[in-house]
This record gives sequence, structure tokens and C-alpha cells, in this order.
Amino acid sequence: MKIALIQKNPTVADFARNVAGLLAGIDQAARAGAELAVCAELAVCGYPPRDLLERPAFVDANRRALDEIVARAAIPAVVGFVDRGGASSNGERLRNGAAVIGDGQVRSVHYKSLLPTYDVFDEWRYFEPADSIELAEVSGVKMGISICEDIWNDADFWPERRYRSDPIAQQIALGARLLINIAASPFAVHKRTLRPRMLAAQAGKHHRPLVMVNQVGGNDDLVFDGGSAVFSADGTVAARAREFAEDMIIADIDIDSGHGRGPIRDTAPDDAAATLDALVLGTRDYVKKCGFKSALIGLSGGIDSALTAAIAARALGPDNVYGVSMPSRYSSEHSTTDAQTLAENLAIHYQTIAIEGPFQALLDALEPAFRGCAPDVAEENIQARCRGVILMALSNKFGHIVLTTGNKSEVAVGYCTLYGDMSGGLAVISDVPKTEIYQLAREINRQAGRELIPSSTLDKPPSAELRPDQLDQDSLPPYDILDAILESYIESHLSPAEIAARGFDAQVVDRVLALVRQSEYKRSQAAPGIKIRHKTFGPGRRMPLAARWR
Amino acid sequence: MKIALIQKNPTVADFARNVAGLLAGIDQAARAGAELAVCAELAVCGYPPRDLLERPAFVDANRRALDEIVARAAIPAVVGFVDRGGASSNGERLRNGAAVIGDGQVRSVHYKSLLPTYDVFDEWRYFEPADSIELAEVSGVKMGISICEDIWNDADFWPERRYRSDPIAQQIALGARLLINIAASPFAVHKRTLRPRMLAAQAGKHHRPLVMVNQVGGNDDLVFDGGSAVFSADGTVAARAREFAEDMIIADIDIDSGHGRGPIRDTAPDDAAATLDALVLGTRDYVKKCGFKSALIGLSGGIDSALTAAIAARALGPDNVYGVSMPSRYSSEHSTTDAQTLAENLAIHYQTIAIEGPFQALLDALEPAFRGCAPDVAEENIQARCRGVILMALSNKFGHIVLTTGNKSEVAVGYCTLYGDMSGGLAVISDVPKTEIYQLAREINRQAGRELIPSSTLDKPPSAELRPDQLDQDSLPPYDILDAILESYIESHLSPAEIAARGFDAQVVDRVLALVRQSEYKRSQAAPGIKIRHKTFGPGRRMPLAARWR
Repeated sequence: MKIALIQKNPTVADFARNVAGLLAGIDQAARAGAELAVCAELAVCGYPPRDLLERPAFVDANRRALDEIVARAAIPAVVGFVDRGGASSNGERLRNGAAVIGDGQVRSVHYKSLLPTYDVFDEWRYFEPADSIELAEVSGVKMGISICEDIWNDADFWPERRYRSDPIAQQIALGARLLINIAASPFAVHKRTLRPRMLAAQAGKHHRPLVMVNQVGGNDDLVFDGGSAVFSADGTVAARAREFAEDMIIADIDIDSGHGRGPIRDTAPDDAAATLDALVLGTRDYVKKCGFKSALIGLSGGIDSALTAAIAARALGPDNVYGVSMPSRYSSEHSTTDAQTLAENLAIHYQTIAIEGPFQALLDALEPAFRGCAPDVAEENIQARCRGVILMALSNKFGHIVLTTGNKSEVAVGYCTLYGDMSGGLAVISDVPKTEIYQLAREINRQAGRELIPSSTLDKPPSAELRPDQLDQDSLPPYDILDAILESYIESHLSPAEIAARGFDAQVVDRVLALVRQSEYKRSQAAPGIKIRHKTFGPGRRMPLAARWR
Repeated sequence: MKIALIQKNPTVADFARNVAGLLAGIDQAARAGAELAVCAELAVCGYPPRDLLERPAFVDANRRALDEIVARAAIPAVVGFVDRGGASSNGERLRNGAAVIGDGQVRSVHYKSLLPTYDVFDEWRYFEPADSIELAEVSGVKMGISICEDIWNDADFWPERRYRSDPIAQQIALGARLLINIAASPFAVHKRTLRPRMLAAQAGKHHRPLVMVNQVGGNDDLVFDGGSAVFSADGTVAARAREFAEDMIIADIDIDSGHGRGPIRDTAPDDAAATLDALVLGTRDYVKKCGFKSALIGLSGGIDSALTAAIAARALGPDNVYGVSMPSRYSSEHSTTDAQTLAENLAIHYQTIAIEGPFQALLDALEPAFRGCAPDVAEENIQARCRGVILMALSNKFGHIVLTTGNKSEVAVGYCTLYGDMSGGLAVISDVPKTEIYQLAREINRQAGRELIPSSTLDKPPSAELRPDQLDQDSLPPYDILDAILESYIESHLSPAEIAARGFDAQVVDRVLALVRQSEYKRSQAAPGIKIRHKTFGPGRRMPLAARWR
């Protein structure tokens, strides 16, 4: 049986564009002789639609989009959509559905059984789970259709999930000869190997060929990495679509033997390369799907803004990236020269706007109020906020989106200024710990085969340059220690005592965790970031603000 | 049977303080002869704990807090806490529980069956529902213990909820002679009458006395209004605790007749008074629970900042409120005189810091970049952002929290400047539509018996004063029309056609809805607001940003 994997990059709610893309893919598959085309989870509306699902008109539009595909699809297809029906706790009775369509009609509909509500997922907010499992049949082949999380109920790979049902085992018991999983499974570094291993194990465990079609593209904070794949019944990879790009591949599956054959595209060689791909795709899609063409970045001469600019240049093209150096009285000479060198290396636009005038004017305006007070973080923040105002003024005037440049370590401990360097539309690297920033910068240079990010930027000690001779390490522990503590706390949920037991100074641990808690309010007002790790600041981490957790 | 209603204002995760408060209430109840003390939902940790529930150490601390109450409570009590156990989909196997304690032990534990996931609620993210319903017994009386949402499954009052089980009906079938509901039910104007009517109907329908104990106080965006109450078996109110304040009342319930007696405290006379009470409590608790003593407000001379300052003065005391007038070249004379009069009327601190210097310095710095461009919203936003920088500088220097002053109508259509007037820690009135701002301002003056908010502020046409002779009505439809359209769209989820069918110009509707969609990104970076309405911008409304919904 020849099955096409239609891997598309939808824009949430852009039904006309999404439908056109799916129909083009199905047409192409039909011309190539495929008998069945498989599209991703919620393919007609894009994932995640979030609270648009509460709007009846949105659900109606999604249904009309499905109907258009039903009317025009040249071959049978599996298409993800939002269905009505079922008793729900939130008004609309909605289901996360997979329609099996063919010959101008919907032949069967299959619902998601396991609704994720952890991390970034809120599916119980919108959907009712399936009441029962039934097989689909196409070209005489009985197949089990599952949706994303349905196939993740595997204690060997996802031990913290403890679902009470196993939809895949039920499909096997019903006589499924082929397993199809349609997904919108976001990228995270640790899932690069986890997801294919888990899928291979499911195929092997049940001795059935398995087709998984994943969404690709960035939608807000999430990047879907694609990598749709076919596994033979012995658990080996039979076909694989591209990562981080749209693709259409056709696999030929011998249902009797369970053996499949098809193209196997290359994957990113390592975590750093995959992370870069994810950040580039997430940046490109956020900027373009929000209607922007160009981006603006404050270039400090440091490694964070350099990496952000390099990612933006790759995502949008250098001619659509505008770097601005905004030196102050505390800026070192190398700040501006490094920024300028970077801009020249990347071939992006570059200008300099000094903040001395606005900074001094603000100090003058505040002089009566501040009289007798020693300089402190207030004066430091004024500088960062002058830069924020300048970037936003350029954004308002010329229509560029501002990209913020804070890394995960800074954002975690609040080593950043709200309404200052946190001002912007997208926080490109806010899920990348400082220690990994260097790895990604070196990967950028390695891939380019030359020094895009200047070695002076890579080598100098990090500094915010908001007072004379300031260095990050004056306020923070060394970044390798800081990042290890942060990972233990934020991603592994360890207690201070458990972290100290890993070999860290208990006082340092307490100080770092206090900084994390004290800066929840800053993160609550941050621009969206691009999720690349297990636990990310943003919609997947919902902390109270007015709380007293120690 | 004498039952005490322990209505407390917990701080999330402040276990020592929460436990001390609950024990003091239980002691007081014991001295007054109560046989049973009833505390609210999740009383030991405070509601909502959000993702603190993902930290095992938090769940442990919550258990130790319960154990301390068990060890020290002088009489039997019902106490809300987080329990472990059960198969969950998110790692920790947690339940939202009610412990019935007495004689130094936990006698029974009852779990929440109906887990809300709509609006601001995420309980499927954390909890497993009850597997079964069992009654509790205290002093020989069999009683049904339910938790908040469990009692809301009533199609007459909450038709959009469609739960598959009715825990209260199950308790009645098991022989419950008394119903106890422990709750953390947040305030919203429409629930003022809905909640007591629903509870009265449940008591009357089942012919059982009903005790409901609600949390009180502000936690982040939510204000819990208290109003704990006892209903006799005929559905009449037998006792009622205070709204918007801690309280302890004792009701004497004749289990055989189902008749109860106790104190009945006054409620707020109308929606405006209740809304003011909610905003004052929400402001006070957010400021204090975040560790601040004082607040800073930019006073424009307009109605929004005047109302915000009046609420802050009541919440924190006038001596803890600092008003700042920040006139520009476009400010009218009456802006500063009205601001000063307001400050004098409220007896709050007042100072003036003109923004002309910083504004001009920023224009000068940007002059090379802006050369040849006509003035537009960029220059308007620079003014708003100068004010934001000044307020944040004063906040950083003196430790006041900045309160933002935007109303719901502005915030909805994006008639506000990100990192400008949106800068601050709490958006006091961001859930109050402009048309209701006037009602609340008049209510403030009525309650004071004098003009706190100057009549000139109440009477002048709204203006942002960011360019010469600017009026809100130049850019927006009249506020009565705007607010009606916004309510139809945001709170009632109507489509443009349905809104136009209510008698509004279709072009105006389209323009307003486009503004709402275009400003999602601003709201995604807004300070938390105080929820007072059915649907509020913030955690209860989760919209995608890079979407193309029309």
C-alpha cells in the first residue's frame, strides 16, 4: 500500500492557505500513485488554536475547510480537524478528530483518547476524549488511527504519564494491520531521539507498520519539527520526511509482511545543529505569520545579541535584519567595534544611536526626586530602558519587529530589565542556557565555514555594561554552575537540599533560587520565546506571582 | 449541630501563616461551642497554587501543614489540601482533597470529582478526579463533602457545563443528611447573585441543609469574595459571612428539620459597590502579598488614573500612595490641575516630573534615523514610554509598585502603549469597561459623601493628549457603542455578523474586532489585572498570537 505523508506548515486559523496546501500535497501524492494521504493533527486549523476553539465561528470555519478537502481530494486521506459532538465541560462539545475521507465523503471519524494537559498543553480545556475506539478501513486494510498523545502511553519511554487506557493496544486487539498516528508534537532537544525510539518500539512491540505524520513550523512559542516517518513492523525506520521544513514523501508498505520502503531524509547531525534549525524556523515563522518582513536587534557587541542576529539573518535574509548599536557612557570601545564587525560579517543593516542624551535628560528630570540617593539599579535600568524606547520607536516608525536577546540563564534569575532589554516581540534565545549560547555561536561559525560571530565576542567575559567595569560574574555564579543549578530547579523540580546534594554550595543554591522566584513577575510580562527544552518559561510554566514559596 | 465557617485569606504557599490563621479560627470556633469547623478549598496552601503543584517539595509542605492542623485542632474540622495518590497524567498523582479531621487524626478524605478546566481554571493539569464518593460522619451525622465545582453541575444555573456525573446527587443517594461544599470560587459581577441562587436551589432541590465555605482575598488576578453561607433545607439563607474580608461565623443547624440559624452579614448593596470592594481587596492583597507597602501611579488628570488612585488610597492608605503628574508639550492646563486636585482630595503624595527634556532628547537621538518621516504613532509612543521609564525609575529607587491605569475598553482595542502606560506591576482596572469606569468613580464620590474624584475629571471628554487636540473619539467609536461591541465579541463569543445583527454598523464592528485581534501581542505582555467579569484578559483567555483569525 502506497501511503503519502503530507507534512505541512499551517498558520493557525488561516484556513484558505492551510486547505490549499493540503490539497496541493494530496494532489501531488495522487499523481505519484499514492492510495492514501495522511495529514497531521488539526491540519485544517493548525496547532495550537488555543481559545479560538471557544469561538463557534472558528469551529464552523474549520468544518467548512474540512468539507472543501472532502469535496476536492483526489485520493482517500486522513485529515485532522475539530469535530463537534460529545458531552464537554466547557460549552462547545468538541473533539480532536481525524477524518478518514474518500470518494467525496467522510467515511469515518476517530477521536483522540489521551488529552495532554501537562506543560504547554491544555486539551482538557477544549476537548472531550474518545468514547470508544473503532478501526478505519482503506483499500481493504483495517487500520488504527490515533492522534499524537494516544501513542505516547508507553511506560518505557514516558514513565511520568500514567494514562488509564492504551488506545494503540485496543486498536491491535480490534485487528488493526497498520497503525497511523497524526501528530502536532513540538520540538524539544530531548525529544529528538526519544520520539523516534518510542515510535519504533511501538511498531516493534505490536509487530505492525506505523505511519506518523507530524506538523512542521513555528506557531507562537512552539516549533514543530516534522520528521514524519514510517516504521516497519520490526521497528526499523522505513521512510522519513525532512526536519524543520515542509515535505511530502511516499512510502510503500507491504501490509502482509509489515515491511515498508521509502525515502529517508537526513536529520540534523547533532543537538546544536537541530536547535539552531528550530530557532531559525521558529523565528522565521513567528515574524512572518505575525505579518512582519524585517526585524530589529539591539547589538551590544556581546554573544547573546550576536547569536540572535545570526539566527535572524538566516531566518529572514540579511537584508531584512537591522542591527542598532546604542552605546552609553559605560560602553567599552570593543562593544561598538564588535557589533559593527558582526553586522559586516552577517551583511545586515547597521546604525549607531547613542543613548547619552536621553539618559542624561532622564537623570536631569529625575534629579529633584532622586536628590540625596546613591546610584543603584534604578540608574542601570534607565539605560536599558532608553535602549528599549529607541528600538520600539524604530519599530513603530519602520515596521520592523524587535527581537529580544536575553538567554535562559539571565531570564531565569532576572538579570534583565523589564521594559528595557526585555522589550520586543519575540525572545529568540530565551530558552537557551548561557553555556549553550557559546555552543550555538560556534556552530553558526562552523556551518558558515568562517567567523560570522567575531572571536572577540566569543572570548570576552560577559558584561551588561550598565556601570563602570561591570561583569556578569560580579553578580552571578559562574555560568556552568548557574546553569546546572537552574536545570535542577526549573526542569527537574529538585528541592534546594537535593540540588546542594549534587555538589553545589547550599548558599549559592539558595541565592539562585531566590532570584528565580523574585523574577517571576518579569517573566510574566516577557515576549514569547521559542521552546527548545523540556521545561520552558512561558505557557508551559504557570507560576503564581503573589506567593511565598521558599 | 453547631458548625463554624472559617473564612480565611490565605497567601499561596505561605504555609506557616495559613496554618496559624486556620488554627486561630478553629480555636475561636471551639471556644464558641462549635462541633465542626469548615475551612475552604486548598485552605492550607491557598488557591490557586498553579505550577507550584509540580514541585514535590511543595506538596510535601502542604501535607506537613495539614498534619500540624490535625495535631492541634481543638474540634473536628474539614480542611482543604492537596493529597497524593491516584493515577494521574502528569507525574505526581495528586487530588484536590478535603480532609475530615478530629481527635488528632485524619478520619476520612474526600476528593473533588468535577475538575474545572474552563476560563482561569486548569485543574486537569494537576489533579485526578475522585474515583468514588463516600460520605463523612461527624457527631453521628452523615454528610456529603464536595469541593467547589462539584456542586455547580446544575443545568438550570450553569447550562454550558455538561459534566457526566452529579456528585451531590450521589451523596444524597448515599444518605447524606447535610451537604458541605468547600470552595475557592472567584468573584465576578454576574456570580454575585448566581452563586447564592444556585446554592439555595441545590439545598431546596435535595431538601438538605447546605454549608458552603469560600476562600476570601486576592491571589494574583483573582479576587475571592468570601460570602460563605448556610442554607436551610428549604433553600432559605440561614447564615452568611462577610464579603471581601475574613470572617468566622457559627450556624446552628437542626439536622432533623434541616433548619439553620446564624448571623447574616450585609452584602454590598449593588454591583458597583461590590466591584469596588473587589478591586480594593485585589489591589491590597496583590501589593502586600508581593511584599510592597506603597504604590506609584501616573496621574494624567483623566478618569482612569483618578479611579485607580482612589482605589489604591483605600486599599493601602493615602500615605502609601504616590501620584506623579508627567506633563508634556501636549498636556492641557487642566491635566495637571485636575491631577493635583485629585491628589489633594485623596490626601496622597504628589509630585510633578515633566517629560519635555527626555522626550526632546529622544527625538534628537532619533533625528538622523527619522529624517524625512512624518510624525506618527512612533512619536506618541515615545511620550508614553518616557512616562513609563520615569515611573519605573521611581519604583526601582524607592520600592513602590507601579499601578497601571488602563481600562478594559482601551486594553481591548490596544489604545495603550506597551512599555509606556502599560508599564507596571498590577493593572487595577483593566477588567472595567470605560462606561463602568464612570459608574465606579461616581460610587467612590457617593460613598465618600464628597467629591474625591473632581467633577472636571468626570465631565471632560477622554483624551490621551499625545498630540495636539487629540480626543479618544477621534480614533474610537463612542464608548457606549465600543463597550457593547466588545462585550458581544469577547465575553459572548459572537461573530461579526451576529454583533451587527444587534444593531451596530458592520464596518464599525469589523474595525473594532480587527483592533482587538491586532493587539493580542500587547496584552500578552501586560501586567496582571483584577478579574471582575465573566471573561477577562489574562490567564482565562489564551489566544494565539501568530494567527490569521478574521
